[in-house]
Amino acid sequence: MLQLYFSPMACSLASRIALMEAGIEARYHQVHLWTKQVADDSSDFRDVSPNGAVPVLVLENGERLTESAAILQYIADAKPEAGLAPRFGDPDRYRLQEWLSFTGAEIHKAFLFPTFWYKDDGSLAKPRARIAQTLSVPSAHLADREFLVGDRFTVTDAHLTWALLLLRPAGVDIRQWPSLSAYLERMQARPAVREAIATEMALRKTLAA
Amino acid sequence: MLQLYFSPMACSLASRIALMEAGIEARYHQVHLWTKQVADDSSDFRDVSPNGAVPVLVLENGERLTESAAILQYIADAKPEAGLAPRFGDPDRYRLQEWLSFTGAEIHKAFLFPTFWYKDDGSLAKPRARIAQTLSVPSAHLADREFLVGDRFTVTDAHLTWALLLLRPAGVDIRQWPSLSAYLERMQARPAVREAIATEMALRKTLAA
Repeated sequence: MLQLYFSPMACSLASRIALMEAGIEARYHQVHLWTKQVADDSSDFRDVSPNGAVPVLVLENGERLTESAAILQYIADAKPEAGLAPRFGDPDRYRLQEWLSFTGAEIHKAFLFPTFWYKDDGSLAKPRARIAQTLSVPSAHLADREFLVGDRFTVTDAHLTWALLLLRPAGVDIRQWPSLSAYLERMQARPAVREAIATEMALRKTLAA
Repeated sequence: MLQLYFSPMACSLASRIALMEAGIEARYHQVHLWTKQVADDSSDFRDVSPNGAVPVLVLENGERLTESAAILQYIADAKPEAGLAPRFGDPDRYRLQEWLSFTGAEIHKAFLFPTFWYKDDGSLAKPRARIAQTLSVPSAHLADREFLVGDRFTVTDAHLTWALLLLRPAGVDIRQWPSLSAYLERMQARPAVREAIATEMALRKTLAA
């Protein structure tokens, strides 16, 4: 059985959504990102992930895979009949990789990451000044499309859904981009997406309590 | 013929290396990243790339593909006999995607990008404090390996080679990580890598003159 190391509402949420959309049962291990402890047994998460980052997917053969872009494609390919990624050989597969990279680099690493990790100094003016330009790209793309790639939900929608959800606590009101706002509503109306978010929000509240 | 929009020594260098390693002839269009002008004809690069970022690969059918992680896989798959990526279905393909994502997000977006774009304020202490931890990951991985994935050069080596090259102007001496330093030397000894770098360094000098 696949195992996912996650932290509630961290970018590992995208992998949980993908697993649930695919109907793949998995074991979930919660990680405290600040203390780097695995909640199950208080073991050191850095023994699992040298970079101390979630998500980590433990494969059936025991190997560990990191980085959302790789994990999400792995999950999609593990259940091809769920249609969560264009098959290899379909030119749209590169579009999926393009959006995984854009979301991971431009929205997550260039904006959400410093916002949540560097919040105690004055370093956020520059990332903040750039985010509107960044968001104009998916906003224009989604103006006349229901999904990021092709005409069905793919793992890159799971990824962008997570990133858009985190923009609000990061102080960005996505209602400035009606196509993004409408897209997020559509994605959140999907049962698997809704359930994945509800599960992690509940765990997050326990964590904060 | 494929066309690549690039800026000398920007991350588009990885795509040039991949094209040259694959023996794929391409047309190259130089972009001034600060003015967003295409050097050929002073046209607005934002008409090509809404995000104003290189690389952009123009495919044979005229479509444009952005993001190194997608472009590098496209180039590798365009010439499978060059062996620049494990074929789809090979588990190592996910390792390739993992390293493309790590290099693009953790080294490029979390460190090199703010270093070169946000240099005029005091915001760099946090990214700088993190980079040693980040580099310890590929350093440990390459301690007993010649290449990042499998036993031959892949496009993710082109990507990491670029990132390591840029660490020096970013003020990080990679001799602190002997395995990274030795790896970079090995990569730079490859004729295609050497020629790609020489071409872009020459263009960069012209630009600065």
